Amino acid sequence: MSNIICGIVVVMSMQMSQLAFASGNGIVVFQSDFGLSDQAVSAMHGVALGVDKNLKVEDLTHDIPAYNIWEGAYRLDAVADFWPANTVFVSVVDPGVGSDRKSVVLKTKTNHYFVTPDNGTLTLVAKRLGISEVREIDEKVNRLKGSEASHTFHGRDVYAYTGARLAASAINFEQVGPKLAPEVLSIPFEAARIDANSLIGGIPILDPAYGNVWTNIPMSLLLSLTKSKDYASLYTQQFLVTVTRGDKFVLSETISFERSFAGVKEGQPLLYVNSLENLALALNQANFAAAFDIQAGGEWRIEIVPK
Amino acid sequence: MSNIICGIVVVMSMQMSQLAFASGNGIVVFQSDFGLSDQAVSAMHGVALGVDKNLKVEDLTHDIPAYNIWEGAYRLDAVADFWPANTVFVSVVDPGVGSDRKSVVLKTKTNHYFVTPDNGTLTLVAKRLGISEVREIDEKVNRLKGSEASHTFHGRDVYAYTGARLAASAINFEQVGPKLAPEVLSIPFEAARIDANSLIGGIPILDPAYGNVWTNIPMSLLLSLTKSKDYASLYTQQFLVTVTRGDKFVLSETISFERSFAGVKEGQPLLYVNSLENLALALNQANFAAAFDIQAGGEWRIEIVPK
Amino acid sequence: MSNIICGIVVVMSMQMSQLAFASGNGIVVFQSDFGLSDQAVSAMHGVALGVDKNLKVEDLTHDIPAYNIWEGAYRLDAVADFWPANTVFVSVVDPGVGSDRKSVVLKTKTNHYFVTPDNGTLTLVAKRLGISEVREIDEKVNRLKGSEASHTFHGRDVYAYTGARLAASAINFEQVGPKLAPEVLSIPFEAARIDANSLIGGIPILDPAYGNVWTNIPMSLLLSLTKSKDYASLYTQQFLVTVTRGDKFVLSETISFERSFAGVKEGQPLLYVNSLENLALALNQANFAAAFDIQAGGEWRIEIVPK
Repeated sequence: MSNIICGIVVVMSMQMSQLAFASGNGIVVFQSDFGLSDQAVSAMHGVALGVDKNLKVEDLTHDIPAYNIWEGAYRLDAVADFWPANTVFVSVVDPGVGSDRKSVVLKTKTNHYFVTPDNGTLTLVAKRLGISEVREIDEKVNRLKGSEASHTFHGRDVYAYTGARLAASAINFEQVGPKLAPEVLSIPFEAARIDANSLIGGIPILDPAYGNVWTNIPMSLLLSLTKSKDYASLYTQQFLVTVTRGDKFVLSETISFERSFAGVKEGQPLLYVNSLENLALALNQANFAAAFDIQAGGEWRIEIVPK
Repeated sequence: MSNIICGIVVVMSMQMSQLAFASGNGIVVFQSDFGLSDQAVSAMHGVALGVDKNLKVEDLTHDIPAYNIWEGAYRLDAVADFWPANTVFVSVVDPGVGSDRKSVVLKTKTNHYFVTPDNGTLTLVAKRLGISEVREIDEKVNRLKGSEASHTFHGRDVYAYTGARLAASAINFEQVGPKLAPEVLSIPFEAARIDANSLIGGIPILDPAYGNVWTNIPMSLLLSLTKSKDYASLYTQQFLVTVTRGDKFVLSETISFERSFAGVKEGQPLLYVNSLENLALALNQANFAAAFDIQAGGEWRIEIVPK
Repeated sequence: MSNIICGIVVVMSMQMSQLAFASGNGIVVFQSDFGLSDQAVSAMHGVALGVDKNLKVEDLTHDIPAYNIWEGAYRLDAVADFWPANTVFVSVVDPGVGSDRKSVVLKTKTNHYFVTPDNGTLTLVAKRLGISEVREIDEKVNRLKGSEASHTFHGRDVYAYTGARLAASAINFEQVGPKLAPEVLSIPFEAARIDANSLIGGIPILDPAYGNVWTNIPMSLLLSLTKSKDYASLYTQQFLVTVTRGDKFVLSETISFERSFAGVKEGQPLLYVNSLENLALALNQANFAAAFDIQAGGEWRIEIVPK
């Protein structure tokens, strides 16, 4: 007589991988102002895969203009939601490297992690996604072994290493370091608002591939101002768009609100809803920003009035 | 007495992964004219990994010149064969976004999938690899949740999402949407041919890194014209090469056919077989296209005559 | 009567992956002078994933200036250590393609593999990491099937294919091809040294993102020269820095050694330790190389004298 207990365990490899990542989700996304022409980004990827070869090592962009913390903050905010919860972002735009700015990890209420110097990079994600907790990186523990002597590549030695360990669940969030007050250093910027019969806002960024001008005015404000129920009821309606830079007049033109670029002839301007659900300006198959010499930044102001 | 059958199943993780992807092979390759300087490509990658964290998310190039559908078509055709069967390509060069061009998935006879607006992007892969089936994307089903309000980033909300779901076998090909006639929108271009004692063809692309001029004339045509059995018998042979653009004469020069760049002195021209098995023109360690002001496009014509 | 307990084998997928890669570690890292604007890099990635879909396919950079073997050698050396042991690097900077330069794989004493034409690319990694063994690629065996007719894209057909097979343990190192003498072709360059009261060295590379000038002088030489025990004792100390190019005087300036960029005012020069533990020159938040018209290369010489 025999008792036979023979378990055949067939476990899907993808389920195993998911089990293996308890706090991070196994994905780490890098951003910097390093460009891709030297070895810096590859060194960060190498350090990350040295922590755990099963990590997904991805990039946001490495073309942030040198030292442009604002654009780094903008890019993080523009993309974070499109990555799964528990993704770890590592952002290194760090003109103050070696100064006393803190190295932190922000956990947002959406359960995304951001590893970065606390120099303004977190301005927008902290505001929009909400702060769950901020911790300072304990660099005595969370630093690539053998890198103690170098003070100039925190991106590789501290941020990539810590971000990878968090993403791989080699450490949990508490092991990053001591808990700080739930706040981050924030850069001032002009908020979008309704002012009497106008929409007012700023130009936080240009769409670099096409020269479209992106405002920070959400489409919902235009619906409120015009008392419209849906986008469709506004298609082809005309607006007076005025752009100023500080005290300087730049542009004032009547522009049509359109469902898509195909709504106007080639070379003609349109007002449209961009992929972030904000209002934006474009020329169909041409470069709006170049045509009117518009850049992005805090001193730019846009006013939109229904005609 | 006992009969014991106890199977110990040791399954390699790589075999498991293959089992897990029934229609796609788990690889999705992105192409666009977005560049890498903003968050657009990263948003597409994030959406893809949000569909399935086990996907291999790769890129062809994102440096297609803005709105240049022809170059998008060319790049897809030049690389598709070097990716495994059942790879899913997502190509977003889409000047007509918002117009009535269809969003489709082409399955070729080689079992590669191409997710793209049907605007000419599929011209070359459809012709060379053969059409197995074309389906229109049902955007009501195959669209990232919460993205319904935006009409300007199909690349992320529809193409990346659908391509990732197909690659991850979250949907099968039939679930893409309704079957269309087995045809795609095609861009006219001058075909390579033998004409009496000449080879005639076009200049579909330049090799951007080095300025080599790539023709669409396959090496096999040169073998036919010269009644040669192999490449080697043609090495060092001289040819009269004439380049015209529409009615305009550009270049007429006697050029040697060589096994490799090292066959001629630095700065000298050669005719060679490129990595696509087509004839191409180069200067050894210099830029042929710049030296003779040659670009790519349908209006360029090249004639090659044995001397 | 028998009690049989049959072991339940639970194997983590990440452990399986490690078992699956016996010689390589499953990671292959590409470098070239191809740029990212055409399909060449994607073709190499595709070939690699065609060998094994479980490979991690990564990049060092593809922005090596065309035919600049020295910079290729420099980038490999600067990043290799930050990737795990048994990583396979594939470097394709190959002006002599088609000539009789050998195609080799170098295994260093640190167990990193380098697949490349033996044209000087291995100069620095061979010297610093040490040569364990060099093998010539047997292209009859280690070549993508169907690619025999093309003589111009070794990067894809031979190097990517062989590197991927090695990384995936589809072949072991011995199966690359015949063993060669343990040496590589080396490019001459000026070595860093102490000369009386001076440090002498070269400028092997610029930091392209910021225009910092990187020397090949290790910080340890400065400690020896100044009989200092640690970096901190040298912070804020002044040095006379002289730069020449061949016989031509370029720059002679008194510069402060600093822990980090924040040690001097915006726009002011500093001498610092870069991420490779070598001395480097920078302007805080500005471009040193552009300001003084300095480039990298063998003919550049730097002299550093304590004041």
